[in-house]
Amino acid sequence: MSITDRRATAPTAPTTDEIFAAHEGGKLSVETTMPLDSTRALSIAYTPGVAQVSRAIHESPRMRATHTWADRLVVVLSDGTAVLGLGDIGPAAALPVMEGKSALFKTFGGLNSIPLVINTHDVDEIVATMVALRHSFGAVNLEDVAAPRCFELEARLIEALDCPVMHDDQHGTAVVVLAALTNAARVTQREFASMRVVIAGAGAAGIAVTEILLGAGVGEVILTDSRGVIHEGREGLSEIKAHYAKRTNRSQVSGGLAEALAGADVFIGVSSSKVPEEELARMNDGAIVFALSNPDPEVLPEVAQRHAAVVATGRSDFPNQINNVLAFPGIFRGALDAGARRITQQMKIAAATALADIVGDELSPEYIVPSPLDERVAPAVARAVMDAAAAEVPAAAPEVQAAAPA
Amino acid sequence: MSITDRRATAPTAPTTDEIFAAHEGGKLSVETTMPLDSTRALSIAYTPGVAQVSRAIHESPRMRATHTWADRLVVVLSDGTAVLGLGDIGPAAALPVMEGKSALFKTFGGLNSIPLVINTHDVDEIVATMVALRHSFGAVNLEDVAAPRCFELEARLIEALDCPVMHDDQHGTAVVVLAALTNAARVTQREFASMRVVIAGAGAAGIAVTEILLGAGVGEVILTDSRGVIHEGREGLSEIKAHYAKRTNRSQVSGGLAEALAGADVFIGVSSSKVPEEELARMNDGAIVFALSNPDPEVLPEVAQRHAAVVATGRSDFPNQINNVLAFPGIFRGALDAGARRITQQMKIAAATALADIVGDELSPEYIVPSPLDERVAPAVARAVMDAAAAEVPAAAPEVQAAAPA
Repeated sequence: MSITDRRATAPTAPTTDEIFAAHEGGKLSVETTMPLDSTRALSIAYTPGVAQVSRAIHESPRMRATHTWADRLVVVLSDGTAVLGLGDIGPAAALPVMEGKSALFKTFGGLNSIPLVINTHDVDEIVATMVALRHSFGAVNLEDVAAPRCFELEARLIEALDCPVMHDDQHGTAVVVLAALTNAARVTQREFASMRVVIAGAGAAGIAVTEILLGAGVGEVILTDSRGVIHEGREGLSEIKAHYAKRTNRSQVSGGLAEALAGADVFIGVSSSKVPEEELARMNDGAIVFALSNPDPEVLPEVAQRHAAVVATGRSDFPNQINNVLAFPGIFRGALDAGARRITQQMKIAAATALADIVGDELSPEYIVPSPLDERVAPAVARAVMDAAAAEVPAAAPEVQAAAPA
Repeated sequence: MSITDRRATAPTAPTTDEIFAAHEGGKLSVETTMPLDSTRALSIAYTPGVAQVSRAIHESPRMRATHTWADRLVVVLSDGTAVLGLGDIGPAAALPVMEGKSALFKTFGGLNSIPLVINTHDVDEIVATMVALRHSFGAVNLEDVAAPRCFELEARLIEALDCPVMHDDQHGTAVVVLAALTNAARVTQREFASMRVVIAGAGAAGIAVTEILLGAGVGEVILTDSRGVIHEGREGLSEIKAHYAKRTNRSQVSGGLAEALAGADVFIGVSSSKVPEEELARMNDGAIVFALSNPDPEVLPEVAQRHAAVVATGRSDFPNQINNVLAFPGIFRGALDAGARRITQQMKIAAATALADIVGDELSPEYIVPSPLDERVAPAVARAVMDAAAAEVPAAAPEVQAAAPA
């Protein structure tokens, strides 16, 4: 099936009226798990019965995990500073996105989730807020927080909270990219160790993709930002970029994207800037192009296809959609099922491997990742994450966190 | 029907096993209001469709009220310092109670609600936390916070947040007491203006009951605490008690509960201490006794009945249960329906009047308040609160808050 055929089968685009109608009153509802329709039911769920449960938790704090909803409740937390492609629109305007994310947690991960939007950019304040509320939840999905603050905030929350914390814009993206690259490598018969990958964009996603690809054994990663290739000789690098300048670009390329793409096997765009066709033409034969900016990819698939054997985007109306929903519900589900206190690099890589393996024999240049609606995805990812957590002894041990060089 | 008959019809008490089983995994579930079962649905609820809604809220902040769940979401907030009769058991152990409260909000008020338990006693920190999260919710039900800190905390939250805030242990109790007293006065043919009411307990409930009874025109209120009658001449009164010493006890009674009850029409116990029968015997003929401590009333109904024409408790297995669930779901529902920024004294009194009126022609000494399961309750209370809010111009105007003398 060609790209054009696939697009022809796409559903009609929702109208603006339809979208606003669907969001009216919000997209979430809190329900009770037992009907409160009799005096007896009230005396079980509330006073006087509930006092026994509270007393038991007071005496055995571990019972909070089994007799409240909190230990399996994911808070979707955002300060609204980097919302989709809209930028710093603030916490109130970010809320519909966070509600949607909570809805995805329930639909795909079977996990309860509530959105909390926070009206401060101060890392100390955000950490203090979540520490104060620690007993209310079981995990934190950090969302749409601007780089580079997101790196510090995630690292600080991981240190401060004894529960899974993950900035999905970083690691959800990284896991799905690794899964897609695993299968793109299979299709094009490449090995990670000899692969040269160029990542355009050194924000939250670019840094996390770099980290996971290095962890998965990719031989050469070159990061670029709006000022060109990141290399050790470049002046004025931020702390985080200086850190990755040391760990990437072994061949010491300098210059711009054009120089980086010469002889590259893979282009991964997470920058929202465009990549000219003539620069893509400098890549190796049978190249792999992931143009992930949404809604406007760095290069349209019909153009990229002239120079690449495998093309992926972030959009649902093209083949090979790199969509975070393939990762985060299963990752959190697996981490919580395992009772893991941290989501480690090994758990993320295991998630990516499981995700790639779902494609199985159907693997083709136009099918390197499963559909977000594929019901096998979240259980397989959760299982892989749980197994990886069990293999780490102890799972809660401090580790060098991705993107937290400080 | 005698009390004994009523007790005979009570359901069998739940077993401990049954109670713990009902609380396993918690009592709440977050559901999505639209199924996310197609690519099209995902593109409406999440990217790219949701971006239109976020952009619209960014441009018109009022749309947060209509296009997120937050404006009608009640946070049940507790620091776990005064949980039921268990005292300061901390935030984790308080959580089952707060979950139950959220369940009651949904069941009886049709409102979404989430529990947040906070691991600090510092009023500044609690206020800062809620201010930071302000865009995440639409109202705050403060719960199980110890006196006297609860007075300051409620007052500070009311000032800091432009949304309904109510400490239910204070005002929910006060509203139901006022409703019950309204009907008890009808049964015993008394007028509020000439009534002498003794309130045993000057904590959260006692103070709020005092305030609402004064607001409703009760002629004489005498407050007592563990040290006896509160009067202007008593030394060492706390700030809040000194405030109410000025506004109550016009007859300048001193001494203990026995002195206060001599010639009293009404006893309201919210203290968890016992009241001896011989002291009740000093009350006026046809007295009214509300023994509200739970699970052990200040005096058992069979004893109180010897000296009183109307007896109420906090328990569901006796007639006339004074239960907060009669008030808070309708109060918050009405306040939110009205778009009110504050829950004023007039709104609370209107709620009590509506609650009392539901009993109607069925009024009797053993039926002065409706059952918590009476489906007419929450809509009637909500309507009355909404009308009262509409009658106040402007509803959001600063007012002297109950129990906030400072």
